Amino acid sequence: MPNKVCVLGAGSTKYGKLNEGIIEIALKASIDAIDSAGITPKDIQAGYISNVFGVTDRQVHMAPVIMSNLGVPEVPGLTIESACGSGSIMFREAYANVAAGFYDCILGLGVEKITHTGTIQSTTLFSYCSDFFYEGGNGASFPGLFASIARSYMAKYKASEEDLARVAVKNHENGILNPKAHVRKKITIDDVLKSPVVASPLKLYDCCPFSDGASAIILCSEDFAKKSGRPFIEVIGSGRGASPAAVQGRDDITTIPSTVAAANQAYKMAGITAKDIDFAEVHDCFTIAELIDIEDLGFFKKGAGANAVREGATSRDGEIPINPSGGLKSKGHPIGATGIGQVVEVFEQLTGKAEQRTVRDAEVALTHNFGATGASAAVHIFKRVQ
Amino acid sequence: MPNKVCVLGAGSTKYGKLNEGIIEIALKASIDAIDSAGITPKDIQAGYISNVFGVTDRQVHMAPVIMSNLGVPEVPGLTIESACGSGSIMFREAYANVAAGFYDCILGLGVEKITHTGTIQSTTLFSYCSDFFYEGGNGASFPGLFASIARSYMAKYKASEEDLARVAVKNHENGILNPKAHVRKKITIDDVLKSPVVASPLKLYDCCPFSDGASAIILCSEDFAKKSGRPFIEVIGSGRGASPAAVQGRDDITTIPSTVAAANQAYKMAGITAKDIDFAEVHDCFTIAELIDIEDLGFFKKGAGANAVREGATSRDGEIPINPSGGLKSKGHPIGATGIGQVVEVFEQLTGKAEQRTVRDAEVALTHNFGATGASAAVHIFKRVQ
Repeated sequence: MPNKVCVLGAGSTKYGKLNEGIIEIALKASIDAIDSAGITPKDIQAGYISNVFGVTDRQVHMAPVIMSNLGVPEVPGLTIESACGSGSIMFREAYANVAAGFYDCILGLGVEKITHTGTIQSTTLFSYCSDFFYEGGNGASFPGLFASIARSYMAKYKASEEDLARVAVKNHENGILNPKAHVRKKITIDDVLKSPVVASPLKLYDCCPFSDGASAIILCSEDFAKKSGRPFIEVIGSGRGASPAAVQGRDDITTIPSTVAAANQAYKMAGITAKDIDFAEVHDCFTIAELIDIEDLGFFKKGAGANAVREGATSRDGEIPINPSGGLKSKGHPIGATGIGQVVEVFEQLTGKAEQRTVRDAEVALTHNFGATGASAAVHIFKRVQ
Repeated sequence: MPNKVCVLGAGSTKYGKLNEGIIEIALKASIDAIDSAGITPKDIQAGYISNVFGVTDRQVHMAPVIMSNLGVPEVPGLTIESACGSGSIMFREAYANVAAGFYDCILGLGVEKITHTGTIQSTTLFSYCSDFFYEGGNGASFPGLFASIARSYMAKYKASEEDLARVAVKNHENGILNPKAHVRKKITIDDVLKSPVVASPLKLYDCCPFSDGASAIILCSEDFAKKSGRPFIEVIGSGRGASPAAVQGRDDITTIPSTVAAANQAYKMAGITAKDIDFAEVHDCFTIAELIDIEDLGFFKKGAGANAVREGATSRDGEIPINPSGGLKSKGHPIGATGIGQVVEVFEQLTGKAEQRTVRDAEVALTHNFGATGASAAVHIFKRVQ
């Protein structure tokens, strides 16, 4: 039986176009998380970092640099990469190490710096996260792949471009209330529909931005958390999944097998079902992704996602609020940081620090984050303690 | 008490300048390891990959691509990076997951493709693994950093350039017998001393080559290994360590703190001392590194390494054979694969598959692999079973 694992602190930089170097933003988030947990760097026994394209800012092998700058060069670390799902996959590894009793206190830090490469180069680099032989190498970068997924979903479930747009409008409404969000701008369905076409049916406002940013959490044993006397949350479910790397290898592209597998594991471990989740942070790299996510996670039946969004079920005061942080769409998507940023949001929500964007009476929350078109995914479930 | 963890199979491509793409070489090593273990891809529950510069061959997020190509797209995976120590740090994570009971059977795959970038670009990319703000960014790439370390060691312990050269000569003698080695060439002390100066006192033959290559192992629970009826080895010690990222942050650069910390943990866990090790694969990225390693690992007193090599104590028939595979120096150094390649060597040695390079009567062996100038390191100890 694994030991109980808790999140005791969380911190984040603003997401957006940042001018500092990757190490500086990584340190900012780390220090925020350390302060939030009321610990000192000396309490940290290992540093788990998630990052994809540090090479573009000329720093890989980041853990020693970060630990040295935090004044604890003797603390070992590593970097984990799983494309846009790096944060949650790293969280899973850090979780496993605490659950197994190897460490009592881990710094989990997600960080990405990409805007300095420019939009074209960013898209090209991101395409290396697809199955490059079949996809990226033939010009199928992510907007195109998700456009195919959207077309398939729209045909199968009679969904419209307005249905996609509604996801963006809702996430922007949430993001406006998040001081750390990248795109804090109220938009209408019409704004989305009239925005430039990126890969039809996806328009600019159907796509999340390229963001820089860092998010960090302190993951620890239950004993460590209790001794702190501070509010904390417990990890009650953890699951990982995988799908065929290239979308062409999948029977049905209106569902993401890795999400389903990861969610099933996490629900089973927590001993709960989707009905017990009070809100969720899900991977909305494109609006279509959120519709598929909320179905694959079991919040709605397949094909019922669009209608649920239309009826407000996923709004902050709805039946199951989705992405109260603003999601990747509005909060932003620094790809190595995103999965940890979701945990930061859950920590803030469940410990009463989410201010204006608070989801009322929430006790159990879920994070869902995937890499590429869902070739890798992880789902975690958290519970408020006390 | 963690579960026992075993290595049941191992495989490797040749190391050197390879023409295939990174996924092809990764698959070759993976299939070799799977065949060697007598299992099928369906037995694998997770894929742990170590790699640093996949981005240069236009494929990151490699696990889904590799698992899909192995015919098991549903198997989750991830990539771990810790510079030249990536393989051993990945091994440590895979070990932890099996020890904790999360998985019974893991594919551990290290892979690197770098020669296509050319020597200058490779050196530049590798310098991103240093503390780039203090080191690489000021022109201090690894040959220069290790030259400083060599000067300091030579001054403190009265060692000579011949003493460094002797490490290269010994490792080339071993590598000649290794069909997978990159540089299979007999060299003399004079050849080393007369080779072009890279960063004085280090000459060309004091430096390991830039290599492409992949190595893979099957890591599993004791039950899984026993049921196979095949020869296997057990992981009896595991340790990780860290040093100040930049060498300027260290009091003494003739020792690597991460090696000492990792070795102490591994020896403690195994309940043995350096005297109980029958042979070791150590991180000889430059000849000076091997002298420091064999002292930091406790095989010889500080400053006694050079004399030990001179007297043949580290030769294949010596008191403690070091790098019977040829080491990074002769076998080659595909940086993401190196740490796993060391485990492949130990597996082959302890299960009677090392042919001409066999270390006689070996039962207990150690692997030591570090990142950058030793900012990160891991040590593992293995025992022959039956």
